[in-house]
Amino acid sequence: MKLAVDGMGGDNAPQAIVEGVMQALEDFTDIEILLYGRQEAMTPYLKEHPRLTVIHCEEVVEADDDPARAVRRKKDSSMARMLEAVADGTADACLSAGNTGALMAGGLFKVGRIEGVGRPALATTLPTIDGKGFLMLDLGANADAKPENLLQYAIMGDIYAKKVRGYAAPRVGLLNIGTEEKKGNELTKASFDLLKEANMNFEGNVEARELLNGVADVVVTDGFTGNMVLKTIEGTAGTLFAMLKGAFTSSTKAKIGAVLAKNGLKDLKTKMDYTEYGGAALFGLKAPVIKAHGSSNARAIYSAIKQARTMVEHDVCATIQATITVE
Amino acid sequence: MKLAVDGMGGDNAPQAIVEGVMQALEDFTDIEILLYGRQEAMTPYLKEHPRLTVIHCEEVVEADDDPARAVRRKKDSSMARMLEAVADGTADACLSAGNTGALMAGGLFKVGRIEGVGRPALATTLPTIDGKGFLMLDLGANADAKPENLLQYAIMGDIYAKKVRGYAAPRVGLLNIGTEEKKGNELTKASFDLLKEANMNFEGNVEARELLNGVADVVVTDGFTGNMVLKTIEGTAGTLFAMLKGAFTSSTKAKIGAVLAKNGLKDLKTKMDYTEYGGAALFGLKAPVIKAHGSSNARAIYSAIKQARTMVEHDVCATIQATITVE
Repeated sequence: MKLAVDGMGGDNAPQAIVEGVMQALEDFTDIEILLYGRQEAMTPYLKEHPRLTVIHCEEVVEADDDPARAVRRKKDSSMARMLEAVADGTADACLSAGNTGALMAGGLFKVGRIEGVGRPALATTLPTIDGKGFLMLDLGANADAKPENLLQYAIMGDIYAKKVRGYAAPRVGLLNIGTEEKKGNELTKASFDLLKEANMNFEGNVEARELLNGVADVVVTDGFTGNMVLKTIEGTAGTLFAMLKGAFTSSTKAKIGAVLAKNGLKDLKTKMDYTEYGGAALFGLKAPVIKAHGSSNARAIYSAIKQARTMVEHDVCATIQATITVE
Repeated sequence: MKLAVDGMGGDNAPQAIVEGVMQALEDFTDIEILLYGRQEAMTPYLKEHPRLTVIHCEEVVEADDDPARAVRRKKDSSMARMLEAVADGTADACLSAGNTGALMAGGLFKVGRIEGVGRPALATTLPTIDGKGFLMLDLGANADAKPENLLQYAIMGDIYAKKVRGYAAPRVGLLNIGTEEKKGNELTKASFDLLKEANMNFEGNVEARELLNGVADVVVTDGFTGNMVLKTIEGTAGTLFAMLKGAFTSSTKAKIGAVLAKNGLKDLKTKMDYTEYGGAALFGLKAPVIKAHGSSNARAIYSAIKQARTMVEHDVCATIQATITVE
């Protein structure tokens, strides 16, 4: 299979991207990679490889480019060319660590929606305390959603959890402000009614407080709420880690304490590490479009490539297409 | 002033409630307290006090009672009698650590809405890294809201921050998934337009990730999102503290490390401690109705009484009434 990669996206591009690509080519012998980006910027990190093709592009989509227009305007950007390769069938999937909005708009515009999918959804695997993680969607592809959209998010998430994460009957939960059936706002109440009739292992409402404890394998919500919860988790964890750092440097005694507890703390950090879970995927498009975290290191890029490979290998998009058409 | 207190609500009732009341009576010489509850359950913790009246009630609203009906059905419960005392003018404000839904429904039904207030909002002060805290509302009094409701939440929050927390020009922020003006869902976009015209120090959109860093003094959102964010903060902090505990007990070395870092960690816990900030208040009712946390200890009850006292002292409800009528 052929995977198209944006060599210029993300805080650590192109080095982290190129290194992640080289590592993936070594480990997965069934992939070919088309790497798009500025030749002179990537060269220092590149090695020759029989399954690697480097395509020079002059332009780069920047983090502050207008998402709606970036891909249309910068036709010779690594992001636009990578999406183009998927659109014209040259590549089976693509990934970028660049401008999220531009990638979503460009993916929708160039790769296109699966017929029958009302709205694409951004999905990612978040860490849990038991190390298994859970899939959450929509994380912000669409700020507003209808109950039918949430039903489709659930269907797509269910397929992904089965095909990519290997669950036989993933526990699907609806993110809500209470676990009782009648809880929530108009959207969640109507979505609950649709989900309980759907052909999946629907576990009912799940609360945000239980997410990191692994209360469900697939958590469905509208893009506004999903984005809000994701940023709240990141913000709370970030603040607590910063305060923890402060606590551990507040005195010499505390500093010694930190050194002694180092292994345990490192283990905690590993558990909360996103780099093992791959990137976020835009569900509902005709081919996998993966968004790796903007701060991705080589390991995170490697995981995102692995994720794209698994999505192609297990025909995730074709299965979504077939399932949505049948529903 | 007279404050009515539900002696039977919360996980640590009646002991924590009675002890908090006794402490408050000692520190604040301008308050009288009407304490409602089962005489025989409260007696072991009670001391005679000239400004304390104990009113025996036979019934108790339990945590799992139906919120909509509890107060109507249990007419001789400590919660119903306490609300009744405010409704008939015997008391100036009331507080309970019991069933949140029952208190909200009962408050609306017995104490009643201020004329002109579309929907009451549940507000509380959450901790920030600098120890100042910020007021957030609505935390779930109403799952669905319209832009006009959010505008009223902002007006009420602004008044509270000025009167109770002493800010001259509180920074009011709209909780959103991006800081740019055009970001968000239909509700936040329309609310932004109303808020920027309002007579307050509106700082624009604020992101959930920045909340604990003190990005605003008053954060306005709909009850669904507010409840979701509150529970996400609690859940994330709870999970991280649990993992931290695991990290600190994973080896003998780590255990010694924890002992050495103890003071720093204790300081962190104090900063995140809700007991100093009082309880949640139901804004938009004719008199202050305070909901103390279900797990309140005596200190938290003391703080909630102090908060009720400040709200009465500074005429928060009358000011809301006057402001809403003028708008």
